Formats: sequence, structure tokens, C-alpha cells
Amino acid sequence: MTQLTAWAQWSPVLGALGLMVALVLFLYIRRQPAGSEVMQEIAGRIHEGAMAFLRREYSVLAVFVVVVAALLWLVLGKLTAIAYVTGALSSVLAGFFGMSAATRANVRTSAAARDVGQGKALRIAFYGGAVMGLSVAALGVLGVGAWYYFLGAAAISESDFVSFAQIISGYAMGASSIALFARVGGGIYTKSADVGADLVGKVEAGIPEDDPRNPAVIADLVGDNVGDVAGMGADLFESYVGSVIAAIAIAVTSAAYAADRLEAVALPILTIVVGLVTSIIGISLMRLLERFNPAAALRNVTFIAAALFIFVMYFVVKALGFEVFDPEAGRAYPATGPFWAITTGAIVGILIGLVTEFYTASRPVKRIAKASQTGSATNIITGLAVGMESTAAPVLLIALAIWISYYFAGLYGIAVAGVGMLATVGVTMSVDAYGPIADNAGGVSQMSHLGPEVRRITDGLDALGNTTAAIGKGFAIGSAALTALALFSAYTSSVGLRETGLNIIDPEVVIGLLVGGVIPFFIAALALTAVGRAASGMVAEVRRQFREIPGLMEGRTRPDSARCVDISTRAALKEMIAPGLLAVTTPVVVGYVSVHALGGLLAGATVSGVLLALFIANSGGAWDNAKKHIEGGALGGKGSDPHKSAIVGDTVGDPFKDTAGPSMNILIKLMSVVSLVLAPWLAKVHGLTGVQEPEQAGALWQGIGKFFQSLFG
Amino acid sequence: MTQLTAWAQWSPVLGALGLMVALVLFLYIRRQPAGSEVMQEIAGRIHEGAMAFLRREYSVLAVFVVVVAALLWLVLGKLTAIAYVTGALSSVLAGFFGMSAATRANVRTSAAARDVGQGKALRIAFYGGAVMGLSVAALGVLGVGAWYYFLGAAAISESDFVSFAQIISGYAMGASSIALFARVGGGIYTKSADVGADLVGKVEAGIPEDDPRNPAVIADLVGDNVGDVAGMGADLFESYVGSVIAAIAIAVTSAAYAADRLEAVALPILTIVVGLVTSIIGISLMRLLERFNPAAALRNVTFIAAALFIFVMYFVVKALGFEVFDPEAGRAYPATGPFWAITTGAIVGILIGLVTEFYTASRPVKRIAKASQTGSATNIITGLAVGMESTAAPVLLIALAIWISYYFAGLYGIAVAGVGMLATVGVTMSVDAYGPIADNAGGVSQMSHLGPEVRRITDGLDALGNTTAAIGKGFAIGSAALTALALFSAYTSSVGLRETGLNIIDPEVVIGLLVGGVIPFFIAALALTAVGRAASGMVAEVRRQFREIPGLMEGRTRPDSARCVDISTRAALKEMIAPGLLAVTTPVVVGYVSVHALGGLLAGATVSGVLLALFIANSGGAWDNAKKHIEGGALGGKGSDPHKSAIVGDTVGDPFKDTAGPSMNILIKLMSVVSLVLAPWLAKVHGLTGVQEPEQAGALWQGIGKFFQSLFG
Repeated sequence: MTQLTAWAQWSPVLGALGLMVALVLFLYIRRQPAGSEVMQEIAGRIHEGAMAFLRREYSVLAVFVVVVAALLWLVLGKLTAIAYVTGALSSVLAGFFGMSAATRANVRTSAAARDVGQGKALRIAFYGGAVMGLSVAALGVLGVGAWYYFLGAAAISESDFVSFAQIISGYAMGASSIALFARVGGGIYTKSADVGADLVGKVEAGIPEDDPRNPAVIADLVGDNVGDVAGMGADLFESYVGSVIAAIAIAVTSAAYAADRLEAVALPILTIVVGLVTSIIGISLMRLLERFNPAAALRNVTFIAAALFIFVMYFVVKALGFEVFDPEAGRAYPATGPFWAITTGAIVGILIGLVTEFYTASRPVKRIAKASQTGSATNIITGLAVGMESTAAPVLLIALAIWISYYFAGLYGIAVAGVGMLATVGVTMSVDAYGPIADNAGGVSQMSHLGPEVRRITDGLDALGNTTAAIGKGFAIGSAALTALALFSAYTSSVGLRETGLNIIDPEVVIGLLVGGVIPFFIAALALTAVGRAASGMVAEVRRQFREIPGLMEGRTRPDSARCVDISTRAALKEMIAPGLLAVTTPVVVGYVSVHALGGLLAGATVSGVLLALFIANSGGAWDNAKKHIEGGALGGKGSDPHKSAIVGDTVGDPFKDTAGPSMNILIKLMSVVSLVLAPWLAKVHGLTGVQEPEQAGALWQGIGKFFQSLFG
Repeated sequence: MTQLTAWAQWSPVLGALGLMVALVLFLYIRRQPAGSEVMQEIAGRIHEGAMAFLRREYSVLAVFVVVVAALLWLVLGKLTAIAYVTGALSSVLAGFFGMSAATRANVRTSAAARDVGQGKALRIAFYGGAVMGLSVAALGVLGVGAWYYFLGAAAISESDFVSFAQIISGYAMGASSIALFARVGGGIYTKSADVGADLVGKVEAGIPEDDPRNPAVIADLVGDNVGDVAGMGADLFESYVGSVIAAIAIAVTSAAYAADRLEAVALPILTIVVGLVTSIIGISLMRLLERFNPAAALRNVTFIAAALFIFVMYFVVKALGFEVFDPEAGRAYPATGPFWAITTGAIVGILIGLVTEFYTASRPVKRIAKASQTGSATNIITGLAVGMESTAAPVLLIALAIWISYYFAGLYGIAVAGVGMLATVGVTMSVDAYGPIADNAGGVSQMSHLGPEVRRITDGLDALGNTTAAIGKGFAIGSAALTALALFSAYTSSVGLRETGLNIIDPEVVIGLLVGGVIPFFIAALALTAVGRAASGMVAEVRRQFREIPGLMEGRTRPDSARCVDISTRAALKEMIAPGLLAVTTPVVVGYVSVHALGGLLAGATVSGVLLALFIANSGGAWDNAKKHIEGGALGGKGSDPHKSAIVGDTVGDPFKDTAGPSMNILIKLMSVVSLVLAPWLAKVHGLTGVQEPEQAGALWQGIGKFFQSLFG
């Protein structure tokens, strides 16, 4: 039944509808009361700081995007270049939409906590996050869907399909290149401000968190938005788009799916359409869920959307009616094979999330807290051990997902498992973005002296977000691993290595593996060093203001917070360049030398990147919560010796979990997608045969012509 | 000219001669004055503690060795089982010899520092280390040489050669399995004692390092011997033996070396013979070098031995007269190809050592010290960043070594490069073992109140050792990487994957890569957790003694140090079991499921193991020296706030550099060698063809018969 493949052409419309829902939520938030003048003034400064950073960041990236687009045009043709630009633009738009909502929802959450109560505050914060979540999902559906409409759906011959996949991979590369810079830049911004604010404010001057006298607090609150909203959004957007495009790239070259080519290409797009719709349903249920059990609502909304999604997908896959024989594996896959792969992805994503939650919020956290009794050194050792230990279960789950999805649908199965894991990103990203909004609301309340009662509510909201954020981080890493593997497989097919094989015994491949393995470590080192450098600049500035601004400590004068915002902004923009360029250029250089070495490089980078990401993100999260556990009254509570030790761990964990850790996810996908996009060029350089030329002159224009015909004819 | 291959049969004799030189040095040390009664009493307690630990450790391991030997006998035949036992026994003997010398040299070094001066003290400490170094080298030459004499030299047919390689790989497995337990156990011992002694003694009670009132000091000094002498010795012994056997395993199946089979098998053995001889020459030059420039003597002795070694090897390779055409690569290698590979290995080993020295003793250390000014958190962040950064250069050097040696001699080249890197282990190990002896001498001086002048000399000796030890650690990691890769290649040939290829695109291989990658992280977590647990037991005991033993703090009564020794011993023996068994059984289980997955597992474990080893060992070393840099007077010196922060880093670094880090080296080799040994069994399980049956009935007895004939006939 191929009617469904025609339905996939309607995906841009659904994407546009999704954006409209996001707009409705945004307008709802705007209508809410924004509190007192003081609150609005503080929120205004956060909003301005965040938007100013985004504008400056995007103007730097615009240069980069234009240069890369020009190179792509020269080497691979104009359609790939255009696709690249649209991918970058989508990522930028998602960031702008999400940030606009988040920096308005924060103060309104705070006002609702003061005037109405927890329920309403929770809803505003969540809807604020949902604007980001739906923007990511809807822009992805819109962008991928539009390219499918214009090029994919019109494909008839095998070479049409290959061209479509090659061009649309430019879209994924656009999303990825924005993402790495946004993640690294945002991560450096937020943590330099955070570490700087904490080291001088909390530790040296002994004033509380988010105290208005601390000049770095505004920068810290801006950082939450820049890093955890815009950065995380760009990260998940690229994973989401990357997984769909990897599945398409495998679908078009897979020998197994030769008979069902169009169905195999349409399925990933239909999958994210279904995911978008079930996400909207999930989000709309929030109001209901929150009344029954506000504490579990955030978590339940995720589970409900996933369950609904799986339910619908069964019928979608059934309707597509796959009947597939894989000549490579020498066996047939069941008709519902892709469904089981998608389901495996969705379930394993949640399981990885729960494992992450266990390591960052359960027994291991108490172990770290207990180790804080013997000092900061044992706190650190235990936290690092917990992080290393926490790599095992997620990696085994990923291995299991690979095994099951391959069993049911071959390589294509692995790719659609990644799509299944990310399809409900509309919900998972909403929950993720909820966290920094609640955190910000707490900051605004503290700075506006709203009193302990309001702060208690916002702290409660924050704690909810912290636990659920763990699930989101797990998703991000798990999906990055599957997506990177799928992109890697797509790359190997594109340069014709599927037939000849990519032999690990080959020294070129071994060298690639080793060099690839080292890149995540090196980039993590760059990110950590950048945070350290920027934070020490911030420390010096805060110390200077405390020393030089008369009356500041007594609360008579206001600190110069604009200066701190500027320090973070400059540092982030400067320090994001080196890791970003390294990640983009390494595959080009290595691929130019040898496509085998590049294959090894991608495999090595994926393995070491996933491990390092899990290790550092989870130890960071565990340290954070160990400190909070003690602050909750355990082992002597706030101000005790164990608390002081736990603060050291938390400070170390900050750049771990919010700068270096998340950069790994993007790094591995970015390198894979760059390789995939460049595959036709590499094939030409190395004189490989059997690789399709990408450009299809006029195909896009034909598609656009068809579009206008359908509109007016 | 095959005369040289006949010379290789004399290698057992040279091994025996090497042991005699070690004995001469041992007797020299014994003859030196052992200082006052107090000193002898303290040294006696260290000696007893260390020997008691070794005895208990080896009795636990004896059970393990017997069980594994029985299984090997059943599955692979008696010769492999016997080889396994001899390998284990050689490792045990090396440990015993080295420890006997080290625990006698320490107090005599201290006495020489008091009575004679720095030169004599340096010499005694170095000769003490040389007993360990020469024992490792000579036992390796003796063991491998004896198996060559009895089986290898008698080989005529291709299948004789294959059987020889398969049986002798049992020898490497014996060495490896002792090594992992010894390294992990020794590492846990030394660091639980060290961390425990420091946390309560230095930090809480404020008494100096090695203060006789601290009950954990003896355990700490025992730990230096157990971990850094015996553990390191077992580590290098297995690398040394493993590299030779990997080269032999590749030599016997390589299509390229089919015409020069016997020469290719003999070369690695001749290489270590030359290395042993040049090591002895290097060691004997110490007396001369130390007079000119004692500070550089330790380093120069390493360089001189390496240079001499390279010089002689040129003639050896020339004389063997390789003329090789590689049908796989489709080209001929130069006649001196293996020489260039060996030279590359030797030089790259030293370069990796120098990089390690840079990261643990140069600018990065000052960066960490500077970061200590803003607290322990920034000290930790910077240290971790330095560790991550430090992975890049060594891995690129290893990649370069692979590339060059493959270019000159194919896969066999990679294997002999590993042999070249380790051939002068007699010297490098001597320098390594010198370190803990000098450290111990300092401890003995402090505990016997020999005064600041003597302590100044021993501190100087210790500092010399620390710098040079970095080179040794670099060697250990670099050689582990090359050896593991060579063993991995040998495994893939043995299960017939060389022909079919081990395709990274194959999901089984990908799953193997991921699972393999996670193992080092998991084992490191186990090791760190074990140290944390054991250290907290030690902390509780030291606190108890300070509290309950009347007059202890005033120095009127003596602490119960035997109890601390017992805590470390028990903890080490208990905690070494889990990681050891995990490492040995994982390849068996995974290989039983799929030989492809096992291939992926070995590659993944090697990449992630090498990276993790470099990361944690180097950050540990850098933290240590950052603390020492501040103690040397920088940034406020001892007792300042930066110093306190640096102590936290140093304490975190202790289990990093001395427990978890070195375990990685052995882990990756052990898993590879287990896979190699089990290859014939795996081939049978999976019904693979083209794999040789191992056992050659009566071959050993024929060899022994020949031996007696040659003696009496």
C-alpha cells in the first residue's frame, strides 16, 4: 500500500502546523503576568543578554556557513549547498524560537509561583520548554519534509534516490555544524559564568547562590538559556535530523530494500511526523497529568507520548507493507521488521535515560555524598569511578539495540531505531528545556527578594527538572551513538566500502581507529581548558568589582553585570572556534589521504566519544546531585565539611556535564555527516567506482514547479 | 645466512647469564652496610610486609593458575598448559627476585646517603632496581628461548611452526594473567595505604609524610615495593614476552615471510637477546656516567642502551638476510625492513616517554599549579584537561610507528616494532624500579630520624626517579598498544579472519567494538572504587589508633603498623579478583558467541584502553608534580592555600596513576593473548577451516631428548 508514501509529502504541512502550536504556546506565555517591575527588569537583562549572545554567535557562524556553502557548491553542486544552508537556518530558527520563549517563561513562572501556586508555575515553565521542543520537532519535519516533497517524492530511478539522499545529507550537515558551535559556545558561556559566580560569590564571599550583589549572576542565568536551552536544542535538532537522513541514506543504497525503495525512504519521515503528532498530544495532556501528580507529570508525559507513538507506528509500518529479502545477509526480514527496530529504539532510549537517572540521582549519588565525609579528594575519586562505571549499562543497551534492530531489518533497522529513539523529541526536548526555565525562575525570585516561600516552590520545580533532565541527557547520548553509527554505515556505502569491506586488520583502518579515538579526548580537553580560562577571567572581574565598587557588598549599589555578560560572550565566541574547525576539517583531511582511514576514524571517534560522553556527563550529574543531597540535610547539611567537599565535586562536574560532555554527542555525528556529504568528492579524489554523481540539474526547480502547479492548478 | 638462527638456540644460556649478573648485583647490595639498628628494624618490617604480601598473593594466584592450566590441558593439550604454567612461574620469579633486592636496597641507600653521599646512594638504589630489570629481561629470554630451543628450532613443516607459536602463546598468557592480578592487587595495596596515610596523617593530624607515628606509613612503604616494583615488573614482563610471542605468531602465518620462516621466528628472540646484552652494558656504565652528571645518568643510561641496541640490530637483521615479497600487499619489502621497524619502535618508545615527561613534569604541571590558586576544583579540572590533552601526541606517535613499520615490513613489522620498543627493558625497568627504592630510602630516613641533610639527599634521588619514571610509564603504555595490536592481528590470523577480513560495518563487529570499549572504563571504575573502599578502611583504622593508643601522638608509644599492613593486604587480595576474572572470561564468552565480535572487542578495548591509560596516568603524574612544584616554593609553598588544593589533586591522582592507569596496559594485552591462545578452540567451536590443530605429540620430549644428547653426546 503505497498511499502512505504519498502522505509523507504532506509532512511540510504538518511541520508548519507544529510551528503554529508552538506559536500558540508562545502567545499563551506572553499573556501571563510578568510580576513586579524589579522582576521584569531582571528578566529583561537576562533576555537581552541571551538574545545578544545568540545574535553575535549567529553572525560569527554566518561567515562560517557562507564559506562552507560556497565550498560545497564548488565541489558538490548547488543543491547540496542550498540544503546545507537550509539545515543551518533551521537550527538557528529553532534556537531563536526556543530562547525567546524560555527567557519570557522564566519570570512568568516566578510570578505564578508567587501569585498562584506550584501547579500554574509548573505549567508555564513546561509550556516555555514546549516551545523549544515543538520548534525543534516541527522545523525538522518541515525541513526534511520540504526536501522530500521537492526531490525525494519525485524520484523514480535508483540514481534519483541516491542524489536525493546525497543532497539532503547537506541539510543534516548544516544542522550539525551550527550545533557543534552552539553547544561548545553555549557550554563555555554557561559554565564560565557559573564557575566564576560560585567560586567568588559562594566560596570566597560567602553570599548565597543567585545573590543580586554578585555581578556574575546575570551571566550565569543567561548561560542557562544559552547553554541548556539553545545549545541542547541545536544538539537534539541535529540528532533528530541526522537520524532521519542516515536512514534515508541507507534506504537508497540498501540492496535489501531495492523493491520497496520509496517506502523505505518515506518511513523515517512518516516516523517523525507521527512522533510530532504524538508529542503534541502528550504536551496537551500536561494540564491533566499535572493535576493528578505534578511530581510525576514530566516523566509520564514522556512515557505516554512514547507509548502512543509506538502504537501508531505499528499500523504505519504494517500499511507500508515491507517484503524484504536481504541478499547480503541471505535472509528475509519480517514485514513488520522496521516497526520492531523503531520500537527497540524508542524503548532503549528510555532505558538509557533511566540508567542515567539511576547513576545521577540514586544510590551512586549517596556513595559520592558519603565519600565527601573524607574530603574533596575522595568525593572526586568516587565521582569519577561512578562516571566510568555508568558507561557500561548504556553501551550494552546500545549494543542490544543494534543487535535486535539488525536482526529485524538489517542495517536499515539500526538507522530507523535511531529515528524511533528521537521521534518524540517534541516531548523530550520540552522536558529538557523546562529545567533551565525553572532554574532561571528560582534565580529571578532570589534576585527580586520574593522570599523563601516562593523560592521553595521554584526549588521544587528545579528539582523535578533535574531528575527528568537525566532522561533527556541519556536520550541525547544514546541517540547520538545510533545516529553516528547509521551515518558511518551510510558513509561506507557511499564510498563503496560496503562491498569491499572495511577491514580492521588493515593498518590504515587501525591508524584511523586510534586517531579517531583520540579526537573526543582532545576536544574535551580544549572545552575544559576554555572553561577554566574563561572562568578565571570571570573570577578576576568579580573579585575586582567586590573590591572596587563601593557599597556593593552592603547592597547599596548595583554590580556591573553587563561586563560579566560580555566576558562570557567573548570567551564563548573565541573558544568555540578551535574545536569546531578541528571537528569539521579532520574528516576532510583524513578522507583525502584514505577513505579506509576515515572509516576507521569515524568508528574510533564514535566508540571513544560515546564512552567519554557517558563518563563525564554522568559523573558531572552525580556530583551535582550529591551536593544537593547534602544540601537537603544529609551528612550535616549546608555549610558542613562534607558539603564543602561536595561543592568541589559539583564545580568540577559543571564543565563536565554542560560543556565537554554534550559536545561529544555532536562531535561524533558532525564528523560522520561531513564524511557522508563529502563521499562523492572523496570517491572522485580516489577514483572509486560505483559511486553516484550527486547533482540532478533542475530537479529542485521541477519540484518547485510541481508545487506551484498543485497550489494553483 | 641462517647461522644466526642457530645462535638463537643459545638464548637460554644468555638468559641464565643475565640472571647471574642480577645475582652478582644482589650480592653486592647485600654486602653494603644496612645502617643502624633502628633503620634495620624498619627496613625489616617493610621487607616482611612486602614478602608476606607476595606469598599470600601468589598462593591465591596458584589456585587460579592450576585451574586455568587444567582447562587449557583439556581444551588445547598439555604443551599449552605447561607453557602457561612456565609463563606464570617466570613472572612470579621475576617479582620475587626484584622485591628481594628492592627491600634490601632501600635501607642501604639510606645508609649510604648518611655515611657516604649522593653518588654511592644513587648507585645502590639503581643496582637494586637493576636486579628487577635484569630479572625481567633475563627470565624472558630464558623462558622464550627455552621454548624456542625445545620446539621452535626443531620446526620444519609449516604446521610445526604454527604449533610452536600456538603453544608458546600459552607462555605469554601465563605471564599476562599473573600480571593483571599483580598490577591490580599491588595498585590497590599501595594506594589504599598511601591515601589512608595521607588523609589522616598529613591532612587531619598535620604530621609530616612518613612520620613514624603514623600507623599506615609502613604499609605505604610496603606498597611502593608491592605496586611499583613487583607490579610494574609483572607488567613489563608480560609486555616484553607478549611482544616477542606476537611477533612469532605473526611470523609463522605470514604469507610474506613464508620463504624466511625460521629467520622471521628467530629475529624477535635475537632482538631481546641483543637488548639484554646492551642493557647489561648500559647498567655497567652507570658507575661512569654517574660521576660526570648524576642528574642525567639515569636518563643517559636509557639512551645509551637504546643506541647500542639499534646499532647491533642493524647487523643482526642484515645477517639474517630477509628477502620478502608480500602477496597481500602486492610488493616487496627491503631486506633491512625489520630493522627499520625495530628502530622505529625503539625511537617511538623513547619519544612517547619524552611526551609523557613533558605532560607530567613541564609547562602543563605549572598550569595545574597555577589553577590551584583558585581552589581544588580548578586544580582538578585543569589536571583532567591536561590528562585528556596528553593522549593526543602518544597516540599519533603510535599511529606513526604503525605506519612506518608496516611500510617497511608489513604486519610483521608492527609486531617487531613492539619488540624493539621493549628490547632494552633491562635498563628501562631498572630505572623504573630505582624510583620506589629511592622513595623508600627517604621513608626509612624519615622514620629513623636521620635528619634533614640525609633526607635532602634521598629527596634528590627521589625527584630524579620521578622524572625518569615518566619515561618508563610512557614505554609501558606505548609498548602495550603495539603489543596488543600485534596480538590482535595474530588472533585474527589464527581464526582465519585475515582472509575473510574483519569488517567494521558488520554489526557483530560494531557491537564488539562498543563492548570492548567499555571494558577498560568498567575495570578502571572497579579499581578506583576498590582503592576508595580500602582507603576508607585504612582511614578508620588510623583514626582509631590515634584516638585509642595512649601516647602515640607524643611519640612515646609505637603504632600498630602490622594491622594497617594487614588491611591493605586483605583489601588487595579481595579486590583484585573481580577485575581479573572479568578480563580473562570476557574474551572466552564473547569468542564463544562470535569470533567477529571478539575481534571487534579486542580492537575496541585496545583503543579505549590506551586512551584511558594515557589520560589517567598522565593526569595523575601531573597532579603529583604540580604539588611538588608548589612544595618546591612556588605560589606560596608548603602549607599555602594553593598547596592544600594541590594535595587534593595529588590524592585523586594516586589511584589514577598507580592503580587504574597501569591496569589498562595489562588488561588490553591479557584479553588479546587469551583470545590468541583460545583461537584453535574457537575455530573448533565455530567449525572454522584452515586453522591448525595445536598439539604436536611428543615434540617437547623430542626436544628435551635432543637437549640431553647435545649435553652428553
